[in-house]
Amino acid sequence: APIAMPAIAQSAPAIKWRCTSSFPKSLDALYGSNEYFAKCVSEATDGKFVIETFSAGEIVPALQALDAVQSGTVEMCQTACYYYVGKDPTFALLTTSPFALNTRMMSAWMRFGGGQELATEFLKKFGVIPITAGNTTAQMGGWFRKEIKEVSDLNGLKFRIAGLAGRVMQKLGVVPQQIGGGDIYAALEKGTIDAAEWVGPYDDEKLGFQKVAPFYYYPGWWEGGAMLHNLINIQKFNELPKQYQAVLRDASAEANDWMIAKYDSLNPGALRRLIANGAQLRPFSQPIMEACYKASNEVYAETSAANPDFKKVWDSITAFRGDQYLWWQVAEYGFDTFMIRQRARGN
Amino acid sequence: APIAMPAIAQSAPAIKWRCTSSFPKSLDALYGSNEYFAKCVSEATDGKFVIETFSAGEIVPALQALDAVQSGTVEMCQTACYYYVGKDPTFALLTTSPFALNTRMMSAWMRFGGGQELATEFLKKFGVIPITAGNTTAQMGGWFRKEIKEVSDLNGLKFRIAGLAGRVMQKLGVVPQQIGGGDIYAALEKGTIDAAEWVGPYDDEKLGFQKVAPFYYYPGWWEGGAMLHNLINIQKFNELPKQYQAVLRDASAEANDWMIAKYDSLNPGALRRLIANGAQLRPFSQPIMEACYKASNEVYAETSAANPDFKKVWDSITAFRGDQYLWWQVAEYGFDTFMIRQRARGN
Repeated sequence: APIAMPAIAQSAPAIKWRCTSSFPKSLDALYGSNEYFAKCVSEATDGKFVIETFSAGEIVPALQALDAVQSGTVEMCQTACYYYVGKDPTFALLTTSPFALNTRMMSAWMRFGGGQELATEFLKKFGVIPITAGNTTAQMGGWFRKEIKEVSDLNGLKFRIAGLAGRVMQKLGVVPQQIGGGDIYAALEKGTIDAAEWVGPYDDEKLGFQKVAPFYYYPGWWEGGAMLHNLINIQKFNELPKQYQAVLRDASAEANDWMIAKYDSLNPGALRRLIANGAQLRPFSQPIMEACYKASNEVYAETSAANPDFKKVWDSITAFRGDQYLWWQVAEYGFDTFMIRQRARGN
Repeated sequence: APIAMPAIAQSAPAIKWRCTSSFPKSLDALYGSNEYFAKCVSEATDGKFVIETFSAGEIVPALQALDAVQSGTVEMCQTACYYYVGKDPTFALLTTSPFALNTRMMSAWMRFGGGQELATEFLKKFGVIPITAGNTTAQMGGWFRKEIKEVSDLNGLKFRIAGLAGRVMQKLGVVPQQIGGGDIYAALEKGTIDAAEWVGPYDDEKLGFQKVAPFYYYPGWWEGGAMLHNLINIQKFNELPKQYQAVLRDASAEANDWMIAKYDSLNPGALRRLIANGAQLRPFSQPIMEACYKASNEVYAETSAANPDFKKVWDSITAFRGDQYLWWQVAEYGFDTFMIRQRARGN
């Protein structure tokens, strides 16, 4: 017995980690999924592997989550890779990017289209390994003080939008603005900015944008399905028993499904209430969408020419995307199209 | 130490279960996800909780998986609840049914729309508890020897189709046929039947239907997203340490994501090859879809009037569905619509 004891203790040791999130507690689908993930990990290890979760700002600011993991300040973070485009534009492709993949396609690309391998290889440079941990689903195109009818209406527009999408819009004359979530409302109210994008109905509703910028555009072509990740310090991950590594993988999948289902279940009611409270739904016109698509392809070509990592990942995504939509337009889209029509007719 | 040892042993005991699947090994996305699930459970418990998987027929036939779990022959099964409509039509609603929910909506309904609670309550009568463990994604409408252009072309059609969809089609003159997967090809070749539905491109391709019934219709309006379940004997589940219960939940989610991504990644290539080998894609016409929708609502009304469990579950699904498509048609569908158009234009 004295010999067996340490072996048992080693196979399921008590471990305590800290996870910093890039999201505030108020985004309860995003941050809530991280708390749920930690609960799943604890339950699946009989309370032996405890991950303490911290919202943005409690340990480090939202956009320093990756750095905190890389430096070992915390063992892991819950974040969106595209927050780190300043380090390398390749990060954007691991979350979502203009006219890329929808939610299910992103998951399929990660698991069976080479995405996980490419992401793992790229993120090794930053000392972390990625595990898919959620998706916001397709986002909205944001809130505008005035209607945007022609491509020329984008010219000079001060739009709170970041990352690759901001660069795309610059090509059409937009002046991208960087403003924290808490300051958007006041900036729209004062007219310091003309428009702002956030997430989708459920998260947008909390900020009340419809009161100051009532035109609510769709689709958010720059975020067809934004994948969230748990990024884990490689060394810390490798030190874990294989059992705990498996628990992290499975609990991340449970949190992934939880977040997607949460958004899907909460967005419809929020959209209803937004419309009742003055939001005016508007689709981006076909010419605007096409101009943005063209500008996106220019940004992709320019970035690919300058950055071999970016090119490798983007080439993989576009090859996968073409095949995906070949099939998606048949059964999935055929089913949804009919159901949408029947609903519109009140059937 | 002699006192502490049993406590440690109890918290992570060695347990061996058997899981019978309703699917043959040849359906490697369906059956493969069950093997992957068992692997995840083993990995997350350091090899202490072992689930041995058996394909359809190895222990019991495909459609007796539930009975084998209920009777305690095996601890759990991987199956589609709609195989048990003979026991109670309510089973159909827990997998998919005509014009119900797409893949993501089904997941959202289960997690946050009351589905899991309703399924758990209903399945208690059969001694099992359900955990979501996969989805085939939207299926195809099947293979037809002749084109079906008018609603009247359905009259007298001998169609291999089962469950609620078979009852719906009977209202339009179809003669539903029950034939095992291995016998469909010969029946189509001889003309014993006129049409047959199976799953989608990846699974259909293996059976070579395009050679004998080349018209490949879509969408499979009776399976907008067929959810698979792990059904677990309630008593056996309750006897598990809470840790292992959590592991089953999380590994099922990992297998769920694996299966959906597997189908999404494999269907496009299969569709390409089927078309290259003679399959002729055809959409069901709008009048045919509408006639089927009307007939479905009649079947739903009749079944609801006769079966309070069915009514309760179906009312929950329809209420959820209305709200879902209100939102789906905006950002998700808007994004997909544009991407499909761009692809068609070769952009």
